[in-house]
Amino acid sequence: METIGADLGGTKLAVGVVDGRPEALWKEEVPSKGYSQEDVVDLLAQQINKAREARPKAAAVGVGIPATIDHETGHAISTVNLDLEDLPIRDMLRERVGIPVAIDNDGNMAMLAEALYGAARGTRHALLLTIGTGIGGGIWLNGEIYRGSTGAGAELGHVVVDIDGHPCQKNCPNRGCVEAMASGTAIGRHGREAAEREPDSALGRLLADGAEIDAKAVNEAARAGDRAAKEAIELAGHYLGQALVSLSNIFQPEVIVLGGGAIAFGELLIAPAQREVERFALDPMNKTRVVAAELGPAAGMIGAAALGRMEMENR
Amino acid sequence: METIGADLGGTKLAVGVVDGRPEALWKEEVPSKGYSQEDVVDLLAQQINKAREARPKAAAVGVGIPATIDHETGHAISTVNLDLEDLPIRDMLRERVGIPVAIDNDGNMAMLAEALYGAARGTRHALLLTIGTGIGGGIWLNGEIYRGSTGAGAELGHVVVDIDGHPCQKNCPNRGCVEAMASGTAIGRHGREAAEREPDSALGRLLADGAEIDAKAVNEAARAGDRAAKEAIELAGHYLGQALVSLSNIFQPEVIVLGGGAIAFGELLIAPAQREVERFALDPMNKTRVVAAELGPAAGMIGAAALGRMEMENR
Repeated sequence: METIGADLGGTKLAVGVVDGRPEALWKEEVPSKGYSQEDVVDLLAQQINKAREARPKAAAVGVGIPATIDHETGHAISTVNLDLEDLPIRDMLRERVGIPVAIDNDGNMAMLAEALYGAARGTRHALLLTIGTGIGGGIWLNGEIYRGSTGAGAELGHVVVDIDGHPCQKNCPNRGCVEAMASGTAIGRHGREAAEREPDSALGRLLADGAEIDAKAVNEAARAGDRAAKEAIELAGHYLGQALVSLSNIFQPEVIVLGGGAIAFGELLIAPAQREVERFALDPMNKTRVVAAELGPAAGMIGAAALGRMEMENR
Repeated sequence: METIGADLGGTKLAVGVVDGRPEALWKEEVPSKGYSQEDVVDLLAQQINKAREARPKAAAVGVGIPATIDHETGHAISTVNLDLEDLPIRDMLRERVGIPVAIDNDGNMAMLAEALYGAARGTRHALLLTIGTGIGGGIWLNGEIYRGSTGAGAELGHVVVDIDGHPCQKNCPNRGCVEAMASGTAIGRHGREAAEREPDSALGRLLADGAEIDAKAVNEAARAGDRAAKEAIELAGHYLGQALVSLSNIFQPEVIVLGGGAIAFGELLIAPAQREVERFALDPMNKTRVVAAELGPAAGMIGAAALGRMEMENR
């Protein structure tokens, strides 16, 4: 069954059509940054209707959004990077696109995609963290997405690793969450601190030149061999690893999948996180595998389309 | 169906017989401290056989032990306070008691009891932390105990709250786990530190008199109004609360039940932990209820007996 998947992020919206395989039959990406609540729903409806025109057989839609969700009512409860608070987004979209709509947290959608087609294929118990501007998550338990008592669960970016750590991002009232310490945003901050501490490093010279030290700049400097930049990424890996230790001790999953933009850091970020689990989780949780996501940036869209199909079939 | 429950702790073994209700038809408690691997299995077999003599209709046994468990094979994998490493404890007991034996982690058993008969009755998603010398845990998801991929999961005491915190206890290679920062052992340590910092406090005078400052002494001083002792307990509540923030953000449970000996601290420990969840968890996880266990010290035995019955019925 052809279904439409929509992956709404803080900077772009990806919409695609898939049919039981992880490749899109049609897809399109548009910017989503700065849209108001009203406008982002218009944008979603417009792009979904465009997908329907391209693939008229598409019978249902799944939408992943970066928010806590009430799964029963299809409401967005709260969100960090978009203006979607308390919005009955599922019903609003249903009215405008004319086919069944399912909505869920974007981390859950990436988890579903990796569990069906990617790095967690064949597992019964897996976790996923998507590391980008923030950190999202998904939980795959007994072969199903786990959503918490009303569908808001699996906010794995808001596992605390440092009780005295950096304040977390907008809409999270806590500090020292793994999102605050190991997201792309945090890697940029670690990089700026390294640049200040080591003015002779490549990062330090960038800072002196007035360049912006963000996650991308840190990654480029590290790839070119800069020790200060590598240390900034390893520091994030250390914090990330401690969150994975907690999650391994809690869930004893078969695998933890790391996805999102920060996968660009590759082994510089993943290897220290893996080592932390091997060294600091309890036996036998220290055997939990930590691996990179396989489906790349399309995972959210693919998972959303799979959700659309599954909810259609369960109707 | 009458079944036998055995709750093996680091200091005592409680064995009882129950029949579908949380009251014991027969029970007995004996010390377990300092027993070797061989002897603790003898002790278990002896007490279970005593229960069978007292209630000959008892048809199955459940045993809760403070260890990570391989649920398929009935092996104890690793344990903190007892010598049970890599022991095929289920089969060893089965041979000596002549009726079906199920084993599981003691935290899971207390969770099962509270979910069936206690503070988590009627919920579909709940967590339990048992706070004593260490911190154990149990997870109740979709109306079932969650055990992880081989049965070792739910080590909720080993959720990290302070990456730079105190080294955790024997057999845990990490530091800053909630067990290291908010267990009874940790409360004793916070109390000793408070006594050193404030020599004029009741705790400070106890220390000067050469008395041992442990969790019990801290609790007594706090009950008598000593500010230093209250602050030591509140500090533990702050760390405990941050672990509950992480767990609320991950699971969005309906309720988190706090059990174990540290319940003696009552509101002094529970109230600051509750406040932390209200203030620092994401919306709507900040609505997670944090409550005291209802079944008291018998929870582990009652849950173990319930497990014995459930595994018998599923045979």
